[in-house]
Amino acid sequence: MTQFPYLQKANRSFVDREVTKVGDIIHEWNASNIRGVGLLGAPLSKSSISHSGACFAPGTIRKALSGFSTYAIEDGIDLAEWDIQDLGDITMHVTDITESQNRVYKTVASLLKENPTWLPIILGGDNSITYPTVKGFSKAKGNVGVIQFDAHHDVRNLMDGGPSNGTQFRSLLETETIEGKNLIQVGIRNFSNSKPYHDYVNKKDVTIYTMKDVRNKKMVDIMKESIHTLKPRVESIYISVDMDVVDQSQAPGCSAIGPGGMDAVDLFEAITYLGEQPMVEGLEIVEVDPTVDFRDMTSRVAAHVILHFLKGKQKGGLSFD
Amino acid sequence: MTQFPYLQKANRSFVDREVTKVGDIIHEWNASNIRGVGLLGAPLSKSSISHSGACFAPGTIRKALSGFSTYAIEDGIDLAEWDIQDLGDITMHVTDITESQNRVYKTVASLLKENPTWLPIILGGDNSITYPTVKGFSKAKGNVGVIQFDAHHDVRNLMDGGPSNGTQFRSLLETETIEGKNLIQVGIRNFSNSKPYHDYVNKKDVTIYTMKDVRNKKMVDIMKESIHTLKPRVESIYISVDMDVVDQSQAPGCSAIGPGGMDAVDLFEAITYLGEQPMVEGLEIVEVDPTVDFRDMTSRVAAHVILHFLKGKQKGGLSFD
Amino acid sequence: MTQFPYLQKANRSFVDREVTKVGDIIHEWNASNIRGVGLLGAPLSKSSISHSGACFAPGTIRKALSGFSTYAIEDGIDLAEWDIQDLGDITMHVTDITESQNRVYKTVASLLKENPTWLPIILGGDNSITYPTVKGFSKAKGNVGVIQFDAHHDVRNLMDGGPSNGTQFRSLLETETIEGKNLIQVGIRNFSNSKPYHDYVNKKDVTIYTMKDVRNKKMVDIMKESIHTLKPRVESIYISVDMDVVDQSQAPGCSAIGPGGMDAVDLFEAITYLGEQPMVEGLEIVEVDPTVDFRDMTSRVAAHVILHFLKGKQKGGLSFD
Amino acid sequence: MTQFPYLQKANRSFVDREVTKVGDIIHEWNASNIRGVGLLGAPLSKSSISHSGACFAPGTIRKALSGFSTYAIEDGIDLAEWDIQDLGDITMHVTDITESQNRVYKTVASLLKENPTWLPIILGGDNSITYPTVKGFSKAKGNVGVIQFDAHHDVRNLMDGGPSNGTQFRSLLETETIEGKNLIQVGIRNFSNSKPYHDYVNKKDVTIYTMKDVRNKKMVDIMKESIHTLKPRVESIYISVDMDVVDQSQAPGCSAIGPGGMDAVDLFEAITYLGEQPMVEGLEIVEVDPTVDFRDMTSRVAAHVILHFLKGKQKGGLSFD
Amino acid sequence: MTQFPYLQKANRSFVDREVTKVGDIIHEWNASNIRGVGLLGAPLSKSSISHSGACFAPGTIRKALSGFSTYAIEDGIDLAEWDIQDLGDITMHVTDITESQNRVYKTVASLLKENPTWLPIILGGDNSITYPTVKGFSKAKGNVGVIQFDAHHDVRNLMDGGPSNGTQFRSLLETETIEGKNLIQVGIRNFSNSKPYHDYVNKKDVTIYTMKDVRNKKMVDIMKESIHTLKPRVESIYISVDMDVVDQSQAPGCSAIGPGGMDAVDLFEAITYLGEQPMVEGLEIVEVDPTVDFRDMTSRVAAHVILHFLKGKQKGGLSFD
Amino acid sequence: MTQFPYLQKANRSFVDREVTKVGDIIHEWNASNIRGVGLLGAPLSKSSISHSGACFAPGTIRKALSGFSTYAIEDGIDLAEWDIQDLGDITMHVTDITESQNRVYKTVASLLKENPTWLPIILGGDNSITYPTVKGFSKAKGNVGVIQFDAHHDVRNLMDGGPSNGTQFRSLLETETIEGKNLIQVGIRNFSNSKPYHDYVNKKDVTIYTMKDVRNKKMVDIMKESIHTLKPRVESIYISVDMDVVDQSQAPGCSAIGPGGMDAVDLFEAITYLGEQPMVEGLEIVEVDPTVDFRDMTSRVAAHVILHFLKGKQKGGLSFD
Ligand SMILES: [Ca+2]
Ligand SMILES: [Ca+2]
Ligand SMILES: [Ca+2]
Ligand SMILES: [Ca+2]
Ligand SMILES: [Ca+2]
Ligand SMILES: [Ca+2]
Ligand SMILES: [Ca+2]
Ligand SMILES: [Ca+2]
Ligand SMILES: [Ca+2]
Ligand SMILES: [Ca+2]
Ligand SMILES: [Ca+2]
Ligand SMILES: [Ca+2]
Repeated sequence: MTQFPYLQKANRSFVDREVTKVGDIIHEWNASNIRGVGLLGAPLSKSSISHSGACFAPGTIRKALSGFSTYAIEDGIDLAEWDIQDLGDITMHVTDITESQNRVYKTVASLLKENPTWLPIILGGDNSITYPTVKGFSKAKGNVGVIQFDAHHDVRNLMDGGPSNGTQFRSLLETETIEGKNLIQVGIRNFSNSKPYHDYVNKKDVTIYTMKDVRNKKMVDIMKESIHTLKPRVESIYISVDMDVVDQSQAPGCSAIGPGGMDAVDLFEAITYLGEQPMVEGLEIVEVDPTVDFRDMTSRVAAHVILHFLKGKQKGGLSFD
Repeated sequence: MTQFPYLQKANRSFVDREVTKVGDIIHEWNASNIRGVGLLGAPLSKSSISHSGACFAPGTIRKALSGFSTYAIEDGIDLAEWDIQDLGDITMHVTDITESQNRVYKTVASLLKENPTWLPIILGGDNSITYPTVKGFSKAKGNVGVIQFDAHHDVRNLMDGGPSNGTQFRSLLETETIEGKNLIQVGIRNFSNSKPYHDYVNKKDVTIYTMKDVRNKKMVDIMKESIHTLKPRVESIYISVDMDVVDQSQAPGCSAIGPGGMDAVDLFEAITYLGEQPMVEGLEIVEVDPTVDFRDMTSRVAAHVILHFLKGKQKGGLSFD
Repeated sequence: MTQFPYLQKANRSFVDREVTKVGDIIHEWNASNIRGVGLLGAPLSKSSISHSGACFAPGTIRKALSGFSTYAIEDGIDLAEWDIQDLGDITMHVTDITESQNRVYKTVASLLKENPTWLPIILGGDNSITYPTVKGFSKAKGNVGVIQFDAHHDVRNLMDGGPSNGTQFRSLLETETIEGKNLIQVGIRNFSNSKPYHDYVNKKDVTIYTMKDVRNKKMVDIMKESIHTLKPRVESIYISVDMDVVDQSQAPGCSAIGPGGMDAVDLFEAITYLGEQPMVEGLEIVEVDPTVDFRDMTSRVAAHVILHFLKGKQKGGLSFD
Repeated sequence: MTQFPYLQKANRSFVDREVTKVGDIIHEWNASNIRGVGLLGAPLSKSSISHSGACFAPGTIRKALSGFSTYAIEDGIDLAEWDIQDLGDITMHVTDITESQNRVYKTVASLLKENPTWLPIILGGDNSITYPTVKGFSKAKGNVGVIQFDAHHDVRNLMDGGPSNGTQFRSLLETETIEGKNLIQVGIRNFSNSKPYHDYVNKKDVTIYTMKDVRNKKMVDIMKESIHTLKPRVESIYISVDMDVVDQSQAPGCSAIGPGGMDAVDLFEAITYLGEQPMVEGLEIVEVDPTVDFRDMTSRVAAHVILHFLKGKQKGGLSFD
Repeated sequence: MTQFPYLQKANRSFVDREVTKVGDIIHEWNASNIRGVGLLGAPLSKSSISHSGACFAPGTIRKALSGFSTYAIEDGIDLAEWDIQDLGDITMHVTDITESQNRVYKTVASLLKENPTWLPIILGGDNSITYPTVKGFSKAKGNVGVIQFDAHHDVRNLMDGGPSNGTQFRSLLETETIEGKNLIQVGIRNFSNSKPYHDYVNKKDVTIYTMKDVRNKKMVDIMKESIHTLKPRVESIYISVDMDVVDQSQAPGCSAIGPGGMDAVDLFEAITYLGEQPMVEGLEIVEVDPTVDFRDMTSRVAAHVILHFLKGKQKGGLSFD
Repeated sequence: MTQFPYLQKANRSFVDREVTKVGDIIHEWNASNIRGVGLLGAPLSKSSISHSGACFAPGTIRKALSGFSTYAIEDGIDLAEWDIQDLGDITMHVTDITESQNRVYKTVASLLKENPTWLPIILGGDNSITYPTVKGFSKAKGNVGVIQFDAHHDVRNLMDGGPSNGTQFRSLLETETIEGKNLIQVGIRNFSNSKPYHDYVNKKDVTIYTMKDVRNKKMVDIMKESIHTLKPRVESIYISVDMDVVDQSQAPGCSAIGPGGMDAVDLFEAITYLGEQPMVEGLEIVEVDPTVDFRDMTSRVAAHVILHFLKGKQKGGLSFD
């Protein structure tokens, strides 16, 4: 309003006319058509085995994301022309965890039914959301491969605590939502998994890259192998990033932290490569717990994961026109 | 062992031979008979409307309790001769909140069935445990009165989120586990409750003492009135302390904090008086969230609530012999 | 959208259909007419003598405010029918502090020019904003009285550092924006002010109530005296609350904290009484620094100041119809 | 230096020419004569039963003290003309605690020998320093009375851990450095002391004012009684303030915190009154642990204790000319 | 007890029937024979030059250790069959530091006298415990070599502060408990040591690997050289890990932190290799200070050091049958 | 004073007679001649775009610096013979940011005018000080080259906020204080800069090494290239280190943190190499914000930058005799 030139929306940060921030290319969904790349929050963490505030991560990741610029100087790539829909959060039930997980499934499935080319970037929440997200994704896409970055197998039995953040890949395998051969686990770590569960994933023909593999191979080669494995077998690939795959010094804001983890830059290289693959049609980030983080460092890493994914997509020539 | 005179159990603190600490009169239950005063942890907080770490409070309250001495110098009363059973915690289900609440009910009910004179001190957990604790208590005791210290009515509708930490008194009233006339709410605070819920408790004939009442009357008079009201109506009285009744400066470690609350010393006086009444046969403390507390200050207040209750019981001549 | 029933705006908190939250009665200004009570953020704290993050207070106070309910049970007053405009924040200049202060003046003046009955609730920022806010207020209202709650006189000389958060009342007095007789300072504290500045305010005929006065008199009597003093002298009264007037244990999130301060409940009583007076037509809260606060306790006190002011206005029969 | 007008000593804070800060009246001792009121740090806390960082308190109290102004507006008293020597800290031994305690004794004794009218303000450190400080004080003064503000008796046996921060008054009594009748303990708290130690101080004829006494009497009356008791019996009085006497909400930075403690304003009134008495010739503050404090709140309370003591001295007409 | 199926020991965490946690293979010592690998806490840090809370590290390391699983997926090694005795903590004297150090010596010596094949894993405490631990170890083993991971030489003179956490290797060398040629220091860092002390260790023929060596060589080669050096000279080797050898970004919870330190993964490789050597018969971890750590990150690194040591032992074929 | 052997200056830390600490070679300037290497604080951060406490960094860096030893064991270099003047801080204006920046310029210029061989080590403050520091430096030195370590270009337009911590290199280029060809930016990072500003520096012929370059080349080769570029073009070289060039896990205490940054050891190698070059005659460190740091980790990195610079100077044979 011209007579009040200094009034602006509350809490707005400094605007430099020559800088495009990621916040400028993300737009709150206005109930228009579902299209392109979309952000979707799944703020569920009551399903966690240990106390978790991962329900706050959609908020902190969005905030971190907004503050970065769109330009990848190292690659000469600018994301300034993107137009990303932020679909908001899935409403969680206060006391019925299974209902909350069901809502995740229904929402992902219905969005992909509405537009099968919609490319979801899902912000967890804890890792329990992966069963419904992948189930919804599979419903739309058919035979699906999953590349999971995680320190843990997450194939716990369901008898000891129900569908938690340690069971989701067992649920996916047991329900045959995905085949073991179509699951690739990267970053599995010492003293963080039990032998019976390692035996289980072996029996299911899951491909495992431990941190020893990550230290001894080039990350891009691991990704090439992974895509090579999945390509002939599946129709679409979904990426699941449990942020605890990264070393505790670089991603301190996860429930289950420890030393001996992945370097964030290796993760970014992997994600960039995967983003370039047209078959890769979905990404989720889980297990960021802002309540135990330091200066949202872990949410900032998460934001970079998303940005490197988009950078890969742009390099890979993604176009929604 | 005499050849290793300096070995002691891990994490043990300094022992002064002339000091009896509260930790010295609390003994881990060894599956012997249920008797006397017993501590029981109910580490449930996934039922909370807003993110809560109240599940950790049984641990921090026990720790705070252990460190205080048994001697109330102001009253010349020493609790050194007590022998309190610590029954441990109720195992909570990882993903089924209703099941967890049921376990609270079943455990309280079965303990009181085993020994109807058992005097429970229940360590929550969030306030949602009050529905099952009072239900279990009532099953054993018959017609029960409840004196609730709380900034909030906690009579929310159950449609909007199920049995949470805002609904428990509605559940108790609607199921007629307790009558409205037998419920007394003390410390209800401005800008912390809605008018419709105030109307609801009025309609149910609940007795309300707001913080204005607390500021304008003597606490001991409010308690006398309360006991006078309940005595002819009920067979037993249960005390429920939601720690957020205390001012945020003195009890910062609760989910829903604010100014204008009760002074801790007033609460201690109320609890002492209530402890002296033989009809008062149970106590619970809820809503302490150690993850947002400062130096376990709020757990220390909770420990003093328990100690003043025991002091009252000793003054009141409680004996289990 | 009916096919996506679980999608909601990001970061939205639990909704109980029977609870009206303060957030429900505050609406982002949509460039419509300026009217009624309005929130206005003045996020300036580069003007502070010591490092201050008070620029973040408009955000944290708004957030604290939104979470409380509209119902004052102690008074039987519900604010649910109010419709408050949130005008957003005044844009501050990155490196020109005087320009920022000027924008505060211009914005307040132009809003009151647009609608002289507009009732501002201004969220600082540090206390330096008081010179431009009162200047703007006076421009519209004429002869103005100010009741300042503060541990400090804030009449420092301007030579040693320019127009900072210690000089604003000197500026107001020296520019004759207000007369000394029309300024009342409440809560002035020991060892927090220099004798020369005490002499200065005395010479200017400012009325001073020290903390000793606050401890020895009833707060409501101090307020009656203050209104009695100002009523025959001024056309309108503005309330300035420097949150450091409250004791450090209850308002730890201010730059200059110390013991010996006011009880928050006394402040609420004062504000309620002042709110009831029709002559009181503006309120500001300054010096809350969320970066050094604990759990936004100080912003919660600030929110209660605003709510008690509105409660007073409703009791006083304010109507904008 | 005139060609570099903007160079100033590192870390210097803002100077307002019309404000005298307490830092301006304290001067680092330059090996001149010992005289007047002197600050002396005793940074010992390895003697504490539980882990304590009280060794950092001389630093934080000095810093808090420096920042306040010299003017007590409530009393119309300005300390601006004082000239206080800061004698620095007593060097502590790294691994020999008894040696460190001895150094405290030797230093206090030799300073008072040098000038028997020197008035020490000693900044602990933990409460174990009180045995050597009072021993040194008594050596110079003869028969000495001690008024101790503390939640605890501190008369533990010495067999279980040697001369710690729980034994100092036992040492003073057993060595007959002071008589029981000349010791007054104020603020002794429930559940913080054992009955055997209460019996011990009773047997020694120590005067005890519990927190119940403090709540039920006027503080100034307790102090009058105390002075009345001591006056005919001793030649000089020493004040020992264990900051944990204050409630945990107002003095959170002490090792042994809990609810039910003294209000800081009551402590200030007591100290002011004591400062006015010519017989009161020494003050110490112990048990402030800045490593567990919030925003140095507890050191700020300690600084106010010192300032109210000086204010009392000025009211009492103290003069060193 | 079957009638209370939900009662469990307080503070117990989730149990998954298919996961063996390290906590499951550690058993509190029940005064049975001393055998196998044993944990022993030495909670002493009053001996530290700068304030240290390393006395809390035995507790936090045990807790971190308990939570990890027994399975090293990278190596295909499971520690699930181990049975480790936790001997608890050595009782420290409250005020006599030399006595505390003596108790460390006496306890280690008597345990190894009881069973010379007992393999100690000692949890400090600060580095001062290394003089008594190695003295006790040497008494049982004869000629001993020590491989010390540390940023610092720790050969300070004893005149300036007695037997502190900076002097222990000087004590060991001066008392000829170990020979300089049998001491290997790994990870010595720039700007963290004085030239005179470097000269001292050179004169004593201590082997030094600085961080430059660590950056330029393979860690496993440094370890091979070290074992090659010691093997012909000593009868047994003891490993001392001062956690400050690790970079401050990965081990922030040490007193003396700085940049330019070792990567934790390099340390784990070294420890694994050393664990495989039968001559290596003891391990200690010192200088972890949980009071200044972030999320017990440093204790988690310490736990991994222990786990890699055990993994090495299992690879090396250790058997106590 | 011999009769008080244990009195020492307040807050002094432990002294080991055989250790030279960096604090021992830095001396507070006593208005003597300006000479050698000098520390100069520029505590300005009100100029920052986002809230910054970088004004506290001169203090924390000095403190970190003082605690390290002078000896670089990896290089066999001891700085013990240096005599560094600490000139204190430049007095900043409370409310006039441009004036403060001017004072930086005037002070640097006048010091270098006084002694053109004076070698400044300037402790910011935010990056806005670089415009006045380099302007002052250039005035004395003539044609100057700058090697800037930074994640960001910092060539923002000046219209949107004036001379902030994002504009200083634009000011230097636009005023032709330095030529684009004489500016080398090292460590520029993805998603932290806009394309228009990259285009701008390209147009100005600034040399850019992105983090990709840093990962793919040896740091020492980048430095050799940089010196090779500048040597024929300029008379003197100034080093500007914005600490946010280092990865967020190693330098968490900067305003604008993110993943993908430089390893501190690479930075130290660069600085050592640059220190060895006689043409390099000035160093500044900016953007350390101690208020958001963890355990002053970032100030410790800053201190190591300075120490490696001095080490380089000593290797390079610097002599002021
Ligand atoms: Ca995981
Ligand atoms: Ca996972
Ligand atoms: Ca409540
Ligand atoms: Ca409640
Ligand atoms: Ca103020
Ligand atoms: Ca003020
Ligand atoms: Ca005490
Ligand atoms: Ca004491
Ligand atoms: Ca070390
Ligand atoms: Ca060491
Ligand atoms: Ca930067
Ligand atoms: Ca910069």
